[in-house]
Amino acid sequence: MDQIVNVDEFQELAKQALPKMYYDFYNGGAEDQHTLNENVQAFRRIMFRPRVLVDVSNIDMSTSMLGYPISAPIMIAPTAMHKLAHPKGEIATAKAAAACNTIMIVSFMSTCTIEEVASSCNAVRFLQIYVYKRRDVTAQIVKRAEKAGFKAIVLTVDVPRLGRREADIKNKMISPQLKNFEGLVSTEVRPNEGSGVEAFASSAFDASLSWKDIEWLRSITKLPILVKGLLTREDALKAVEAGVDGIVVSNHGARQLDYSPATITVLEEVVHAVKGRIPVLLDGGVRRGTDVFKALALGAQAVLIGRPIVYGLAAKGEDGVKKVIDMLKNEFEITMALSGCPTIDDVTRNHVRTENERIKSML
Amino acid sequence: MDQIVNVDEFQELAKQALPKMYYDFYNGGAEDQHTLNENVQAFRRIMFRPRVLVDVSNIDMSTSMLGYPISAPIMIAPTAMHKLAHPKGEIATAKAAAACNTIMIVSFMSTCTIEEVASSCNAVRFLQIYVYKRRDVTAQIVKRAEKAGFKAIVLTVDVPRLGRREADIKNKMISPQLKNFEGLVSTEVRPNEGSGVEAFASSAFDASLSWKDIEWLRSITKLPILVKGLLTREDALKAVEAGVDGIVVSNHGARQLDYSPATITVLEEVVHAVKGRIPVLLDGGVRRGTDVFKALALGAQAVLIGRPIVYGLAAKGEDGVKKVIDMLKNEFEITMALSGCPTIDDVTRNHVRTENERIKSML
Amino acid sequence: MDQIVNVDEFQELAKQALPKMYYDFYNGGAEDQHTLNENVQAFRRIMFRPRVLVDVSNIDMSTSMLGYPISAPIMIAPTAMHKLAHPKGEIATAKAAAACNTIMIVSFMSTCTIEEVASSCNAVRFLQIYVYKRRDVTAQIVKRAEKAGFKAIVLTVDVPRLGRREADIKNKMISPQLKNFEGLVSTEVRPNEGSGVEAFASSAFDASLSWKDIEWLRSITKLPILVKGLLTREDALKAVEAGVDGIVVSNHGARQLDYSPATITVLEEVVHAVKGRIPVLLDGGVRRGTDVFKALALGAQAVLIGRPIVYGLAAKGEDGVKKVIDMLKNEFEITMALSGCPTIDDVTRNHVRTENERIKSML
Amino acid sequence: MDQIVNVDEFQELAKQALPKMYYDFYNGGAEDQHTLNENVQAFRRIMFRPRVLVDVSNIDMSTSMLGYPISAPIMIAPTAMHKLAHPKGEIATAKAAAACNTIMIVSFMSTCTIEEVASSCNAVRFLQIYVYKRRDVTAQIVKRAEKAGFKAIVLTVDVPRLGRREADIKNKMISPQLKNFEGLVSTEVRPNEGSGVEAFASSAFDASLSWKDIEWLRSITKLPILVKGLLTREDALKAVEAGVDGIVVSNHGARQLDYSPATITVLEEVVHAVKGRIPVLLDGGVRRGTDVFKALALGAQAVLIGRPIVYGLAAKGEDGVKKVIDMLKNEFEITMALSGCPTIDDVTRNHVRTENERIKSML
Repeated sequence: MDQIVNVDEFQELAKQALPKMYYDFYNGGAEDQHTLNENVQAFRRIMFRPRVLVDVSNIDMSTSMLGYPISAPIMIAPTAMHKLAHPKGEIATAKAAAACNTIMIVSFMSTCTIEEVASSCNAVRFLQIYVYKRRDVTAQIVKRAEKAGFKAIVLTVDVPRLGRREADIKNKMISPQLKNFEGLVSTEVRPNEGSGVEAFASSAFDASLSWKDIEWLRSITKLPILVKGLLTREDALKAVEAGVDGIVVSNHGARQLDYSPATITVLEEVVHAVKGRIPVLLDGGVRRGTDVFKALALGAQAVLIGRPIVYGLAAKGEDGVKKVIDMLKNEFEITMALSGCPTIDDVTRNHVRTENERIKSML
Repeated sequence: MDQIVNVDEFQELAKQALPKMYYDFYNGGAEDQHTLNENVQAFRRIMFRPRVLVDVSNIDMSTSMLGYPISAPIMIAPTAMHKLAHPKGEIATAKAAAACNTIMIVSFMSTCTIEEVASSCNAVRFLQIYVYKRRDVTAQIVKRAEKAGFKAIVLTVDVPRLGRREADIKNKMISPQLKNFEGLVSTEVRPNEGSGVEAFASSAFDASLSWKDIEWLRSITKLPILVKGLLTREDALKAVEAGVDGIVVSNHGARQLDYSPATITVLEEVVHAVKGRIPVLLDGGVRRGTDVFKALALGAQAVLIGRPIVYGLAAKGEDGVKKVIDMLKNEFEITMALSGCPTIDDVTRNHVRTENERIKSML
Repeated sequence: MDQIVNVDEFQELAKQALPKMYYDFYNGGAEDQHTLNENVQAFRRIMFRPRVLVDVSNIDMSTSMLGYPISAPIMIAPTAMHKLAHPKGEIATAKAAAACNTIMIVSFMSTCTIEEVASSCNAVRFLQIYVYKRRDVTAQIVKRAEKAGFKAIVLTVDVPRLGRREADIKNKMISPQLKNFEGLVSTEVRPNEGSGVEAFASSAFDASLSWKDIEWLRSITKLPILVKGLLTREDALKAVEAGVDGIVVSNHGARQLDYSPATITVLEEVVHAVKGRIPVLLDGGVRRGTDVFKALALGAQAVLIGRPIVYGLAAKGEDGVKKVIDMLKNEFEITMALSGCPTIDDVTRNHVRTENERIKSML
Repeated sequence: MDQIVNVDEFQELAKQALPKMYYDFYNGGAEDQHTLNENVQAFRRIMFRPRVLVDVSNIDMSTSMLGYPISAPIMIAPTAMHKLAHPKGEIATAKAAAACNTIMIVSFMSTCTIEEVASSCNAVRFLQIYVYKRRDVTAQIVKRAEKAGFKAIVLTVDVPRLGRREADIKNKMISPQLKNFEGLVSTEVRPNEGSGVEAFASSAFDASLSWKDIEWLRSITKLPILVKGLLTREDALKAVEAGVDGIVVSNHGARQLDYSPATITVLEEVVHAVKGRIPVLLDGGVRRGTDVFKALALGAQAVLIGRPIVYGLAAKGEDGVKKVIDMLKNEFEITMALSGCPTIDDVTRNHVRTENERIKSML
C-alpha cells in the first residue's frame, strides 16, 4: 500500500475490487455529471499566496467541531452502505476514524446498525438522517443514536427526491435490506426497471419536508443539529434563523441536482451570510491537502471526505480508510508549512486567490 | 427502450437506424457547426441556485401557450420531413405529442399533409410557415391550416436564404416532392451538385420578406402569429411593434448563420426588450430537464425540442417521440423539486446563475 | 472539385500535392505557432447579432480599394514563390484574381517576373515590397512595377529579421533564384544548416528601416503606399503621420513574432486610431465568409487571403484559386443575407459581438 | 545537434538519455503538477504589442546583475546534482555558462564541490544555499564559497519542508552523498519507502527559518544576499525591509507547493511592491526567448533557466548546455528585433499585453 501516493490512486483500486454495480453506485453523479467534475475542477482554479520565512517547525493541525477536538479539520462524510464496499462495512470505517482522531458522520443508510458502530470503538460520531414519510422511524433512529452516544444529528435536506444517477438506472441498482430498519421499514427493492435505490427513496423520503420541520426535529432530540445540503445565502440565513447548530455546504457529492454549483464556489456566499454565528463545513470534491487548506481559507471550519473514504475501504478495508485520512492530513500539514501557517488560525483568506480576485485584480 | 436514460442516447440509435444522407440532414449545422456546439455548451455554463426544505411533494409542471394548456413548458419544434425518419412521419410525432398533452408545431416542409396530421388525433397544433415567392401557395396552406384546426401560425423569419449545411452539399441531399404542395409547387430536386434542399429553398423562398409583410400575413389569417428566428433586442422590439403574438428565440437549430449566438445567451436580451408584452419561447440545444428549467428562469415561457424528437422518431417511432418528451418532463420535474420550485411560477431568475452573475459577483 | 465545400478542405489536398519542404514552408508559423492558431481561433470567439425580415433578395458585395472597384472585400495577400506550389505560379493566381474581379497583391518574392504577371491578364494589381540593404534593387523593382501598371505599393514593415519557422530550419528550406532579381541579386541559398530563406533574408533585408524611410519610398514612386504589418494604435498613428495611403493589420500570417496578437483582436485598436483617415485592411486567419463579415464589422475595408489561395493553387492551379475566392465570396454573400445586410454599408459594428461586449454585458 | 531547434526538444533527448528515476527527479513537480503546467501556460497567455519601422540592425541584449555584466538577461538557475545528468556534472554546466558570458547559480546540492566548480573556469557565479538545522554546516559552505570567489549568496526560502514529488516517492529516489558535505553531513539516504531526497531534507533543513535569520546570514558573509522563493507583495516588502540585495520570484520549479501561482502571474505584484529598490529576477517555465522578453517587460531584470539546462546537460553535456543558452539568447534577440527594441532598456511594459489588460480593455 506504500506505493499509493494520493487518494485518487485508491479510486482505480476500488474499481478493480468492486462489482461494477457497486463501483458505479459510489462513483456516479447526477445526469451529465457536470457538477461531479466541477466539484474537483473548481478547487483547481484556486491558487495560493504562500508566505515564506515563517517558523513552521511545529505545525498544529488540530481543531474542534461542536466542541469535540479533532486531529485535523478533515472529517468523514456520510456515505451509504459501506458493506457494499467491504464486508466489515461502517465498523472498519469507524475504527479508522477513531485511529485518526477524527469524527465520522455515520450514514442513515448504513449497513451496520448504529449500535454495532457505536460499540466498535470509542470515538466521537455524528449521525446523518433523512426524514421519512414515516417520521416515527426517523424519530426511533435518532433516539437510538442518542442512546448509542452519537454527539450530533446531521439532517440531509437536499433529497426530497433522489437525483437521477443514470448508471444506477442502467444497472437496476439493488436497494438491500438495511439492518438499522429491520422490523421497521423494508428497504429492499430489486427493480425490473430503473434504480432500486431511487424507487426506495421516492417511496420512503418525505418530499414535503420544510424549514418548519426543524422544530419537530429539535423536539425529539437534545443533540446539536447540522443541516447538510445548502448552497445559497438565502438558505444559510434561513438555517441560522431556524436555530440549527451548523451548516454543511454540499451538493450531495453531485448526486442530486446536476448543474448545482461546485461547493467551493458558493462556500464564501454561505460563510458571509452566516457571519460566524454557527460553524460552516464543506464536502464535495476534496481530494488533496491543498483542497482542505483552500476550504479553510474561504471560511470552512472543516471538510468532509466522501468518495475517497469508500475507495480506501473498498481497496484495503480499515487500513485503506486510515491511509486516505493520513495522506490527506500529511498533505494538509505540508500545505500549512509551505504556506507559512503553523496553526489553523494562521490560515487566512489572504493565503488563497480565487478566480474572483484574479479577475478583480485585472480591473 | 427502458435502457435509454436520456435523450442524447436516442441520437446514437437514430444514427444506426437512418441512411447517412438523412441522418446528416437532421444532425447537420451550418459551416463550422460552431453555433451547433455552442447551443448545447451555453446551457452547461449556467449553474443553479437550488433552495432546500421547500414542500415539493406535489410538483405542477403545467402551463399554457396562447391560452392553450400544456402539461409542461416543453413543445415540439417544427422540423422538416419526418417521413425521412420514420414511415409514419408527422402522424407518429403528432400522436406522441397528443399523448403527452403538449403542442406540436408542424413544419411547412412536413411529409404528411396538414389534413392527415389534423385528422390523426385530437390535439392543439400550430403550423410553421415559410413565405414563398409564390405568396398564393403560402396563403393556401395557411387557409388549409386554419380549416384543419391549427391554432397558430409560426412564421420562420431567419431563412431568406438556406444556410450552408456542408454535409447536405457533399451528400447532394435530395429534396423530395412534399404532399402538401402536390399540384401547387414541385418541391422535388435531385441535384448533380450541391444540396437539393438548398436549391429548392433558393428557388422558392421569398428573400425580400420584411417586417411590413407581417401585415400581409395578418390580412390572410385570424390565427395568432408567432415569429421564429429572432436573436436581438432590436428585432424583438420590431416584432412587438409589428403586433405579433409571440417570439421564438431561435437560430434555426444552428442550421442557418454559423456564429449566431447560442439562443440561451441572448434569451434575456429579448425578454428584457419584450417586457412581458408577448410570450417568448426558445429552441436550440435543449437536451435536459435542467435546460428547460434554465430557459424558464431566464424568461422563456416554453421551449421547443427539435433534433431529439426526430432521433426518437427515427429510433422507435411514436413510442420513441413519447419517450423523449416523457424523459424531458421527468427530468424537468425532478429539477423543479430539487430546486425548491413546486410550480412553474416558483421558478425565478434567482434560481440560476449565468456566466454573467459569476463574473459580476467577481467584481 | 465540386466535392470541396470550404477553403480548409483545400489544405489537405495541398498537403498531398506538395513536397513536404514546400508544404511546410507555406503552412508554418513562427516558433510555438501560438499566433498561427490564435489568428483562426480569435475569429471564432466573435459572434453575430443577425437582423431578420430585411429585404435581402439583392445582395451587393462590391466595394473598392484606393478607388479601384472590386467584386467583394476579399483580396489576395502577397505570398511568396507560387511556382513552388504550381508550375504556372503567380500567373495562375493572377488570372484567377482577374476572373473574380478582385485585386491581387503580388509578392516581392514572386517566382514570375512583374512583367510576366502584368502581361498575363488585365486586372488591378498591387506590388508588395521589402526594402533591401541594396535600396537600388528595391527602387528598380518599384519602377518596373509602376511601368507594368501596378496600382499601389504595399510596404511590408514587420520583417527586419525573418521569424524562426522551425519546420524550415529542420528542412533546410532552399531559397531559389527569383527571376525578378536575375542580374540584380542572387537570392539562391542551399544551406547546410538552418533555413535558406532565413539566410537570404538576413543577408538582404534592411533591418535599419524606420518611419523616416517612408519619405524615401515616397520619393521614388507616385503610386499610393500601404504599410503592411502594424498591430498597435501607436504605429497606426505613426503611419497616418507618415502620410501612407493605407494600413494592413497583419502579423505576417503568424510567421514572424510568435505571440503577436491575432489580427482580428487588434483591428479595432488600429481602426479607432486611424479614425477613417485612410483605409484599414486585415489579413491573418480568414478562412470563412463569416470571417470576412466580422472584419468588416470591426472596421476593415477589405481582407487579404493568404494560405488558402496557395492551397487552392497547389491543389488545382488557377481553377483552385478561383474556387477559393468564389467559395469565400459565396459564403460572405450568404452571411450578409442572413445578417440582414444587403450592401457592404449595411454591415455595422452592432452586427457582431466580440468577447469584449460579452464581458462588458456581464457587468 | 543542429537538428534541435528549441529547448523543449532537449527534454525528449534527456528522457532517452537518463535512467527513469533521474529523469523523473528533474522533471517532476509537486502533487497534481498543476503549477508545473501553469508556469509554462501562463507565459502563453501573454501577447506582444510589437512596434515596427524601428532601426533594429544592431541589437544589444547585454545587461548586468549586481554590477556583473552578463551577455543577456538569461542566467542559470540552481538545480541539484548535475552528475545525475552527466558524468562531468556542474563543471560542464559552469563551462557552458562561462562560454556564454552569463552567471550560473550553483546549487547547495551540487555533486561537484564548490572548489571544483570555481577552479573549472573563470566566470561570475553565485551560490544558492539552504540553512540546515546544523547552521555551522551552512556557514562553512558560505565561507568556502566566499573564498572560492562566488559573488553572491542566493538563500532559498521556500523549502521549510520538501514538497511532495510523487514520482520520487514511487521511485524511492536515492539521496546520494554530496562531495561538498563529505566529513560534515551524511546526505546519503537509500529509502525502503518514500523519497530519500525528502527524507534527507526533512532531517537536515531548518523549518524554523524566519526573516530574522537574514541578519544571521548577513553576519557570516559580506556577499550580497538574494532571497529565492517569494510569490507575494507582502513577502517582497519584508525582503526589502530585511535589507536583502535581490529577489527571485520563484515557486521552486513547481516542486514545492502545488497550486502556487505561476511566477509570471505574480511578478508584477512583487515588482510593484519593490519599487525598483532591489533587482527582481524570475524563474519557472521559461522555455522561449519570447518568455524572457515577457518577464523583462513585466519588470524582471533577468530570468533563471532551470530544467532546460539539465536536459541540455543530460543530452549533450557542456555543448548541450551551451546550445540551450545560445538558442534562448538567439530567440530573445529576434524577439527584441521584431518588437522594435534595440536594447534591454527599450523593452517596456507597453510591449506586452497580459490577460489583465485584455480584460481591462474589455471594460
